[in-house]
Amino acid sequence: MTDPLPTGATIGILGGGQLGRMLSVAAARLGFKTHIYEPGANPPAADVAHACTTAAYDDTAALTAFAQSVDVITYEFENIPTEALDILEAIKPIHPNREALRISQDRLTEKDFLTGLGLNTAPYADIPDADALDAALVTIGTPSILKTRRFGYDGKGQARLKSDADAAQAITDMAGAPALLEGFVDFTIEVSVIAARSASGDVACYDPGENVHRDGILHTTTVPASLPASARTDAVLLAARILNALDYVGVMGVELFVTPTGLIVNEIAPRVHNSGHWTQNGCAVDQFEQHIRAVAGWPLGDGQRHSDVVMENLIGHDMDRVPELAAAPDTALHLYGKAETKPGRKMGHVNRITR
Amino acid sequence: MTDPLPTGATIGILGGGQLGRMLSVAAARLGFKTHIYEPGANPPAADVAHACTTAAYDDTAALTAFAQSVDVITYEFENIPTEALDILEAIKPIHPNREALRISQDRLTEKDFLTGLGLNTAPYADIPDADALDAALVTIGTPSILKTRRFGYDGKGQARLKSDADAAQAITDMAGAPALLEGFVDFTIEVSVIAARSASGDVACYDPGENVHRDGILHTTTVPASLPASARTDAVLLAARILNALDYVGVMGVELFVTPTGLIVNEIAPRVHNSGHWTQNGCAVDQFEQHIRAVAGWPLGDGQRHSDVVMENLIGHDMDRVPELAAAPDTALHLYGKAETKPGRKMGHVNRITR
Repeated sequence: MTDPLPTGATIGILGGGQLGRMLSVAAARLGFKTHIYEPGANPPAADVAHACTTAAYDDTAALTAFAQSVDVITYEFENIPTEALDILEAIKPIHPNREALRISQDRLTEKDFLTGLGLNTAPYADIPDADALDAALVTIGTPSILKTRRFGYDGKGQARLKSDADAAQAITDMAGAPALLEGFVDFTIEVSVIAARSASGDVACYDPGENVHRDGILHTTTVPASLPASARTDAVLLAARILNALDYVGVMGVELFVTPTGLIVNEIAPRVHNSGHWTQNGCAVDQFEQHIRAVAGWPLGDGQRHSDVVMENLIGHDMDRVPELAAAPDTALHLYGKAETKPGRKMGHVNRITR
Repeated sequence: MTDPLPTGATIGILGGGQLGRMLSVAAARLGFKTHIYEPGANPPAADVAHACTTAAYDDTAALTAFAQSVDVITYEFENIPTEALDILEAIKPIHPNREALRISQDRLTEKDFLTGLGLNTAPYADIPDADALDAALVTIGTPSILKTRRFGYDGKGQARLKSDADAAQAITDMAGAPALLEGFVDFTIEVSVIAARSASGDVACYDPGENVHRDGILHTTTVPASLPASARTDAVLLAARILNALDYVGVMGVELFVTPTGLIVNEIAPRVHNSGHWTQNGCAVDQFEQHIRAVAGWPLGDGQRHSDVVMENLIGHDMDRVPELAAAPDTALHLYGKAETKPGRKMGHVNRITR
């Protein structure tokens, strides 16, 4: 491993959304500068960054100049084109590593990796075409979900199958993209473990948070989750196994289904995660700073929970509630400064300290 | 009062030091953009600001362009030249208001204002020249401190008098500047009240913090302070009286001496204050956000203390301790990203959560 980055060094962040924005603030808290790389105009992260490059992921000159201007590179989303990563990695280190990206960019590869580690996932099958779906429905059955293997988020690129009769429409919904069929998991709750691993191999996990989704988008995360202590330990050990297997450096979000027979891994995200936003008001060191510490080769900070928190996402016109939320007790508001409010768009979140 | 600023609006901040930096982060958290105005190169605040103007306070064109680009103006320090304020205020509102600045820019005016409110201060006398000092030493005596009326901070522009024999040297130290003699106060502890007042006149105070200085610079602030409940109430009421008298909008730092016979106001600062940094890890809404909320016409947030905190300043080569502090439990590190470490320079602070 390399020496820790000195304060004043520059951390390059691929992606200028709210995660990049909060990573940038955390980096500044440790005395780092940040440089954002983002194709879209006026990215939220640019408001709190030292520098911002507005360029596409196929712009070799811009990628090269960006990599040369920073000391280390990280990212706020996993769907970065491989060619861009090749250019960047030839110039500066990228954390979390390429293997973590490769695995999490493809749902099938991810499931194979997880089951290869001995972890449980939903039953799944590779669905390259309609025939494969017919065959998979025999073993996996319905209800089940057909998902594109790549580029899905917040419920996009997914089709639910209530019965075999939905198969044709589901295939149409995939629009020719390689897909994966996932069987139904009868879970009691969904929890996330936000896990961090430092360059020296230390692993620290935040308390699992309990997630509730609405319309396929995370609605609330509540800590502590309603989990028995044994399941809490299992969740943390499981997350640590994933990070260690990948020689991972940074923060990862691990979504788990809690079932009567044990924990099932839903998905992993090689980055800070929406379900970890509660840490901003529940811990001395939040997930964003923990990620920056890892990427910078620093020791992990203290992520012990000092307060119970309910995080609620503000989606689209939830922004109309801001005046009321701003005046509410025990409430910390976090807005992303997005110019336009759109239905389904994550505009901010609120952390309520409940104890 | 005017309407609350909508998210996306721009807050202008005079001064680009660590206070401007932390104000800028707080503004971003509420979805505001910030524009920093700072004469010095590479100001710490610029790393987390939407825009930064590097120009002097006598640059009329730059001041005008700055004021035109923002929706409201605030500041991180009180010694802003009057002429600059005149130019700015003709274009955009300034909070806290000019009266608060006028009073706090001059120690004599400030003492007269405070005693005029019926509050207790150290005994003091206007010292325009050496004869006035001789006369004042008869009534006030020694030990006492001669201070320049304007432009002092962190113990600069001050001369201690142990006996009348120190008078000549003290006058020389003032270098001809108008001065004030302050009598000795036999206090048990010094506390700060960080008080906020909204545009609609609501006042909220953080729990008083107990300050320890070293070499004339704040060393630690501890909350809760070792104060009886009645003194805590007195401190808060007293701070509220000051803010209300000034029709103040924003956060003010009020330094108090605790004596066996009651509270004595040491000084007031019309801005966020070093002794309020603990609020970043002790409260849902910290002093920086509280200030931004007030300046933006928003309701004040919840500043109730959820954790006990000891804040310690990192001065000069305290930066050598960062690797150790980064790995310490219950510890939140806040570094200012200053390029150069100098003796006596505030480089960062650390908030230790003690309970």
